Amino acid sequence: MSETAQTSGTAQIGVTGLAVMGRNLARNFARNGYTVAVHNRTAARTEALVSEFGEEGAFLPASTPEELVESLERPRRVLVMVKAGAPTDAVIEEFAPLLEEGDMIIDGGNAHFEDTRRREKALRERGIHFVGTGVSGGEEGALRGPSIMPGGSAESYRALGPMLERIAAEADDGAPCTAYMGPDGAGHFVKMVHNGIEYADMQLIAEAYQLLRDVAGYGPARIAEIFRRWNTGRLDSYLIEITAEVLAHVDERTGEPFVDVVLDQAEQKGTGRWTVQAALDLGVPVPGIAEAVFARSLSGHAGLRRASRSLPGPTPAPLGEAAAARFADQVEQALYASKLVSYTQGFHEIRAGSEEYGWEVDPGAVAAIWRAGCIIRAAFLDRVRAAYDGRGDLPSLLSDETFAREIGEAQDDWRAVVAEAARQGVPVPGFAAALAYYDALRAERLPAALVQGQRDYFGAHTYRRTDGEGVFHTLWGGDRSETRED
Amino acid sequence: MSETAQTSGTAQIGVTGLAVMGRNLARNFARNGYTVAVHNRTAARTEALVSEFGEEGAFLPASTPEELVESLERPRRVLVMVKAGAPTDAVIEEFAPLLEEGDMIIDGGNAHFEDTRRREKALRERGIHFVGTGVSGGEEGALRGPSIMPGGSAESYRALGPMLERIAAEADDGAPCTAYMGPDGAGHFVKMVHNGIEYADMQLIAEAYQLLRDVAGYGPARIAEIFRRWNTGRLDSYLIEITAEVLAHVDERTGEPFVDVVLDQAEQKGTGRWTVQAALDLGVPVPGIAEAVFARSLSGHAGLRRASRSLPGPTPAPLGEAAAARFADQVEQALYASKLVSYTQGFHEIRAGSEEYGWEVDPGAVAAIWRAGCIIRAAFLDRVRAAYDGRGDLPSLLSDETFAREIGEAQDDWRAVVAEAARQGVPVPGFAAALAYYDALRAERLPAALVQGQRDYFGAHTYRRTDGEGVFHTLWGGDRSETRED
Repeated sequence: MSETAQTSGTAQIGVTGLAVMGRNLARNFARNGYTVAVHNRTAARTEALVSEFGEEGAFLPASTPEELVESLERPRRVLVMVKAGAPTDAVIEEFAPLLEEGDMIIDGGNAHFEDTRRREKALRERGIHFVGTGVSGGEEGALRGPSIMPGGSAESYRALGPMLERIAAEADDGAPCTAYMGPDGAGHFVKMVHNGIEYADMQLIAEAYQLLRDVAGYGPARIAEIFRRWNTGRLDSYLIEITAEVLAHVDERTGEPFVDVVLDQAEQKGTGRWTVQAALDLGVPVPGIAEAVFARSLSGHAGLRRASRSLPGPTPAPLGEAAAARFADQVEQALYASKLVSYTQGFHEIRAGSEEYGWEVDPGAVAAIWRAGCIIRAAFLDRVRAAYDGRGDLPSLLSDETFAREIGEAQDDWRAVVAEAARQGVPVPGFAAALAYYDALRAERLPAALVQGQRDYFGAHTYRRTDGEGVFHTLWGGDRSETRED
Repeated sequence: MSETAQTSGTAQIGVTGLAVMGRNLARNFARNGYTVAVHNRTAARTEALVSEFGEEGAFLPASTPEELVESLERPRRVLVMVKAGAPTDAVIEEFAPLLEEGDMIIDGGNAHFEDTRRREKALRERGIHFVGTGVSGGEEGALRGPSIMPGGSAESYRALGPMLERIAAEADDGAPCTAYMGPDGAGHFVKMVHNGIEYADMQLIAEAYQLLRDVAGYGPARIAEIFRRWNTGRLDSYLIEITAEVLAHVDERTGEPFVDVVLDQAEQKGTGRWTVQAALDLGVPVPGIAEAVFARSLSGHAGLRRASRSLPGPTPAPLGEAAAARFADQVEQALYASKLVSYTQGFHEIRAGSEEYGWEVDPGAVAAIWRAGCIIRAAFLDRVRAAYDGRGDLPSLLSDETFAREIGEAQDDWRAVVAEAARQGVPVPGFAAALAYYDALRAERLPAALVQGQRDYFGAHTYRRTDGEGVFHTLWGGDRSETRED
């Protein structure tokens, strides 16, 4: 590896950890004209990258962390692409002692934002910028243009941002799908919520599919056509597009629709769960995302499901041809309305996280960089961006006039679909939770007043009144007079 | 405090922390014939307890931890009743050095079970038993008989259990509402899930109330009567009973129904949130409990609600007299079925926690000690106990024949209520989530298969097949052939 010595100090970025995501990001930088130092714990991967893709650009293979660091121009940019958790800490500990003030370590893995906050603080005290960065788009995105959500110091973004803007996906208006999200854990937090929304999107699509199957009585091929049609309208998105592909696919071994031979037990990796747990800590209701996470875990409880299969319930009676077509249109409305609610919940969580941690995340910028490159990329997100444009203080996405009008127009069909699913015994936890959230949000009065009364009764937890200031308790066990407690 | 010296070593239990829960538990022990050493950081509380309630039994006031410890017989039992969190750790650090091998520290606060596991381990290494103990029943329960859920070592239960059995509530069959739950955090875990179920119970009752109000068109007084009637049937429980009391109550200041003058923003203390977060970590679906937690947090977002009040939706059109009466009966069915689902989820979480941590919690024993003393006490729990009787391996509560039959009989009405709520715009997140869970559990096929297909498409996450072993990936970007990946 004699190149290292002769080109020492000329690479604009170093990548350590060359599994598929790291390798593809390194290639992406190289293909965009950057000199990329590459390093992997086992040298074989480094060599394979250079021998297979060396033609794509300027790679400087490094066999040790020292070599990688020496080959970088200053301020040094070291992108860490290893498994989240202990491996990330180990790699940071390997590199940090080799770096100098003003250098930066970029973590492009799926770290929990609390870990990122901890690491950023520790490295800041050592004069090193730690840039926790969400990267979405899978292998293909990493190579051809992901959506990139960097956190960390504003100073680090000045030195790194332009490079990220070069390798990121491009939205239809030509803008790069990356922007500075905010200090310390902001980038990984936004990426976490992205994934939570992704869970919800996928669950809602899955419910739409099941309804078209059981209630409309359509087969997978026909449903694929419907998704293809929806993909030309306001639902136009990557997930709708690939849903059509998956549903149209025929299993080569059996000749059956592919979706019918796949085991119906969904797996998950943790970011959806984190999104719900963080929302609970922040006091933000995200039932749509929670239902998606729960639907996956429920599907995996094979024993419980087997034991429950004989529980009584209706057998869906598919509709006739005309009614089925009408129902399919209603499902599109329900899907769109529920999706609007999911995004409302996700953006609420981002706002709450931003306030809790002082990040000042710009929701419009988030929507803008999700327009391309990431899994939830969609035409819809350009409209979300527009909704927040100059209105970062919008109380919620549903406060936007256009979205409010659309959900208003969708609601009759949405209600009809949820009602029909309940009657026919098709589980639609996502659609139903979204509708309940919507109706709770717009309710003049909620039965939370009764809950406060119960809490005061059994635990003297007190309540407030609608007609003035103060905290009160009723002497339920006594003469039921009211005492002021504040 | 000269009593201490002369009676040194004769108290069966010491209580430190004499706020209302600690004071009432101390009185409960004393009223049951035990000699109780009492201590509080500020001596005034100790003195007040002895001067106000000294007649009730044998109290030994202690002005220091040393004095408290000296006044106890061996093995010493020190019950800590301070705020959960750092104060608990501080008190443990004060007392542990004063104790000898085989002595025990009992934490009767609402600690997180992970903290209890940590503390138990640390004290075990010092030869001290740490007994994390859930206590439910509020002030009144603490005094007259709570439901008590002790964890810790089996040895500690032998020395402490008989005393707890004396002060605990008594079920209708005379059995005490306490039992050994299992090692380390088992007691606090069970108490946490108790509170999660309590959240769900309260939310479901609140939804029933709102439906009776908006759809049946009844006023609070009339709804109180309905709850009173329900309380004589299978819904017979403390929470239904106090709901009737709260709804019947008239505000003295305005002459309005009390429930109408209470601010409809529900508060919470954290155990419901913990229940959902722990369930997410354990991979257990608890959407009913989650919706209850989210409903409370949503109600508290006053600004968001104000901004959303003008969102379009139907105005409920109350039913006529006969239809309303019929609807009320349907709501009872929906409430009962949804409650069954909540308990199914809660007991699933207890089983999963027990397996994860090796506690061997007996679900029948849990149901038995919840029959009286605690907030969710209900006739129903004796039937849950019976369902698990000799069948600790019951896959779920719904696998019990009686419950399966009941939910089968309830389902038509349950479906009608969820459908009606959707149409009329009344938010019923709990009812709807319970129904979706039920329908998902009994589904022959779930759209999780589609989700797995999507995941394989965008992330090469692989899938399994219904027709054999193995892990597979389809080359979506290539010729769409299938490769085996395991």
